[in-house]
Amino acid sequence: MKAIVLFSGGVDSTTCLALAVDRFTNKEVLALSLYYGQKHDKELQASKAIANYYNIEHKILDLKEIFEGSSCSLLKDSNLEIPIGSYKQQLEKTTSPLSTYVPYRNGLFLSVATSIALSYNASYIYYGAHQDETSSAYPDTSKEFNQAISKAIYLGSGKQVEVIAPFVSQTKDQIVKKGLELKVPYQLTWSCYQGKNKACGKCATCIDRQKAFLKNGIKDPIEYEVRIDEGK
Amino acid sequence: MKAIVLFSGGVDSTTCLALAVDRFTNKEVLALSLYYGQKHDKELQASKAIANYYNIEHKILDLKEIFEGSSCSLLKDSNLEIPIGSYKQQLEKTTSPLSTYVPYRNGLFLSVATSIALSYNASYIYYGAHQDETSSAYPDTSKEFNQAISKAIYLGSGKQVEVIAPFVSQTKDQIVKKGLELKVPYQLTWSCYQGKNKACGKCATCIDRQKAFLKNGIKDPIEYEVRIDEGK
Repeated sequence: MKAIVLFSGGVDSTTCLALAVDRFTNKEVLALSLYYGQKHDKELQASKAIANYYNIEHKILDLKEIFEGSSCSLLKDSNLEIPIGSYKQQLEKTTSPLSTYVPYRNGLFLSVATSIALSYNASYIYYGAHQDETSSAYPDTSKEFNQAISKAIYLGSGKQVEVIAPFVSQTKDQIVKKGLELKVPYQLTWSCYQGKNKACGKCATCIDRQKAFLKNGIKDPIEYEVRIDEGK
Repeated sequence: MKAIVLFSGGVDSTTCLALAVDRFTNKEVLALSLYYGQKHDKELQASKAIANYYNIEHKILDLKEIFEGSSCSLLKDSNLEIPIGSYKQQLEKTTSPLSTYVPYRNGLFLSVATSIALSYNASYIYYGAHQDETSSAYPDTSKEFNQAISKAIYLGSGKQVEVIAPFVSQTKDQIVKKGLELKVPYQLTWSCYQGKNKACGKCATCIDRQKAFLKNGIKDPIEYEVRIDEGK
């Protein structure tokens, strides 16, 4: 195995996966999806369909026990409602991490991927951190965090594993641009924080992805309950 | 909760625990023990006895699935024998991490502790990395690694969690010196890589701890099959 891709089944990680498969072959890439106790498993279903589409090995681990005790609103055991509105609107109201911040999720997931990379003799971990409002909302997606964790992983793995964050200086619409070139099957992805039949269209991540497609002059190919790109 | 202590039930982490309980109170410290699929559970048994001794909350999580596929000789599923002889002797024969290196274990464990610290509103994570042959044997115990991961955890937690590695510039005999001052119940600890009734006395970690006690002028209080401190 050459590369492990942290793979949620959303827009960013699916584009990462496409990049890894483009650089290596489908037999040299392992997609790693980590369940952490979220309210629904729509992302996992999406990730299975996409792994199947690319014909790659897909490993799913359940880490929910680690997050027991967290009040993060994405988690099944939380009493908090998932907020409505864009990241920007939410960040205007608070200086703390948002209720949708899963405690140190990226740090944890990258560490799990490192242990697995070492066991599988893979040298690279791909993950989809990028540069926009989410870096203020989620401290474990910032450039500074990425630099520090990449160094820690390189040193702590005995210089055997390197983190690749191809979008760390890019915005989501640039990710989608790259993905469209790579013919990413975005119709199979899932991002919505809610677990309904269709994506809600109103949570921060639904707003975010619709805008990213719009900036590329096209409509997001998934179905929404409410669209912000209607008639455009 | 104020502090989470990464707690294996060995000499270093038990001394860390004693430091944390000394700084805070037993109600403000949570000991976190992580099972990773090792050949025996003697360490976990020891950790339970010590947590009980200090009357602190003790959380045990099973992470063995993450290490499936690793050939590390400490793991139940590995075909490799646990090596005999000191770290120094083993390191003279190889430049790779030793077969007892559990892939990125410290990085992973610190990340798990960070997620839990955030859920429990704890601001500190204590862990027992120290400065001697083990830093060459295990890349995830070096000073440089500790600096990088501490920064990653501080940034990725939204500046809410700090890593405390009180022994990162100290040797094991200095740890034991501090522990003796704090009256650490070393008779309850377990370090041996083997899972026999008594500690084997011949694996790297058994040799290491006997020497550390000897340098402090006393015998290691646990029972060994073979001692290196006999008659001293």
